[in-house]
Amino acid sequence: MKQSLVIVKVGGKIVEEPQTLERLLSDFKSIPGNKMLVHGGGRSATALAAKLGIESKMVDGRRITDADMLDVVTMVYGGLVNKNIVARLQALDINAVGMTGADCNVMLSDKRPVKDIDYGFVGDVKAVNSQLLSGLIEQGIVPVLAPLTHDGKGHILNTNADTIAGEAAKALASLYKVTLIYCFEKPGVLLNENDDNSVIPYISYYDFPRLVHDGTISGGMIPKIQNAFNALQAGVSSVLITQAEALDKLTGTTIAL
Amino acid sequence: MKQSLVIVKVGGKIVEEPQTLERLLSDFKSIPGNKMLVHGGGRSATALAAKLGIESKMVDGRRITDADMLDVVTMVYGGLVNKNIVARLQALDINAVGMTGADCNVMLSDKRPVKDIDYGFVGDVKAVNSQLLSGLIEQGIVPVLAPLTHDGKGHILNTNADTIAGEAAKALASLYKVTLIYCFEKPGVLLNENDDNSVIPYISYYDFPRLVHDGTISGGMIPKIQNAFNALQAGVSSVLITQAEALDKLTGTTIAL
Repeated sequence: MKQSLVIVKVGGKIVEEPQTLERLLSDFKSIPGNKMLVHGGGRSATALAAKLGIESKMVDGRRITDADMLDVVTMVYGGLVNKNIVARLQALDINAVGMTGADCNVMLSDKRPVKDIDYGFVGDVKAVNSQLLSGLIEQGIVPVLAPLTHDGKGHILNTNADTIAGEAAKALASLYKVTLIYCFEKPGVLLNENDDNSVIPYISYYDFPRLVHDGTISGGMIPKIQNAFNALQAGVSSVLITQAEALDKLTGTTIAL
Repeated sequence: MKQSLVIVKVGGKIVEEPQTLERLLSDFKSIPGNKMLVHGGGRSATALAAKLGIESKMVDGRRITDADMLDVVTMVYGGLVNKNIVARLQALDINAVGMTGADCNVMLSDKRPVKDIDYGFVGDVKAVNSQLLSGLIEQGIVPVLAPLTHDGKGHILNTNADTIAGEAAKALASLYKVTLIYCFEKPGVLLNENDDNSVIPYISYYDFPRLVHDGTISGGMIPKIQNAFNALQAGVSSVLITQAEALDKLTGTTIAL
């Protein structure tokens, strides 16, 4: 029987403020068994870029990454956010290692081809070194992945953190019973966006088109749930959409085939 | 018989310019057997700090690290410099992993006590996780250490790269036959500082006081050579002071007991 592995993805807001970060990491510690953390850091990147006079350009929530912005995200995601999380996990006796996709060649990507939009130095994941990751996990080490990959030709590329978490989950699904948890601002997918008590507990592959059609699911939630279904179809055992504050209870919206 | 391990420390200047970095990494690749790289990045840290309106304060070549400067060095050393080196080593088929002392608890330090000078968030190394490092090395992974440690209480601390290299060498000396190479601007310790052809090939423990007394060795070279003797006394097999450009030939000044 496969061992379990929980992969938690948390966005920038939670990991960028000391108090919410402390709470998150303590909840993360309470998750039993093998685990892995994937983080964002967009707000800090935007803030640093602004201080440096570099404009943050976004298209559909995705950052356009020119050479200057690549340096910014390499510093913020790979350095500031990642290393502070790792140091704090160590203080909680979790033997974490912070990694970008370049470290141990954990995640290789291709620079996104220019079609309608030139995203710049953005990478689409093409290979995950699941053997290396599982080797670390077997040693009791907790990988903490920054949203950066590399192209194998010497360049770091900016890669969406949701994608990193999803690709890692899919690649590790042959080795582990993987639970993928996406933390975001709300306690789950809401029936009524103004009512945090209206969490939809369960969304199946058959419910999804209807919920998109009637407008219950819209905007950035659509690709998030599509990614969840992709992960499930690739063998991931379960996907949970929740908020960081509920990580200790694991309530939220379960996505299922 | 112990396997060999070469630990190369390179300062900021070399790793911060693409051309010298490429040359360095290609020379580093040519070193046979187990190896490890320790890098600086002070120039980039000073440049980023200046852009952010943060003043760089140095005492005897050591950086005073207040909270803002700690963020700067965490971004520059742990992110920008470290991850670009790792990505470029991967392109050379070297399976590198970038690490601060917090990653896998590789290097634990104490915040330096305030005596005459308050260095701020600066760490004095107190423990090196040699088992973890040798476990990586046995897997063919090349650790690339940034000059950052952690205090085990959740904080990153700034730590001199020469010290990181020296402490790693000493800790690993019980497991490997360690050669420690310090790269700096000159081809070695010079008899005449204006003549690059006047390299002193060999400095013994007995020569050292005389060379300091007659002024041949002065300034920042004194602690560098003292660190070398400390490393040798702790079991490191040999210490070489050279310049990055000579890394392929391994010429320079050998320090010996």
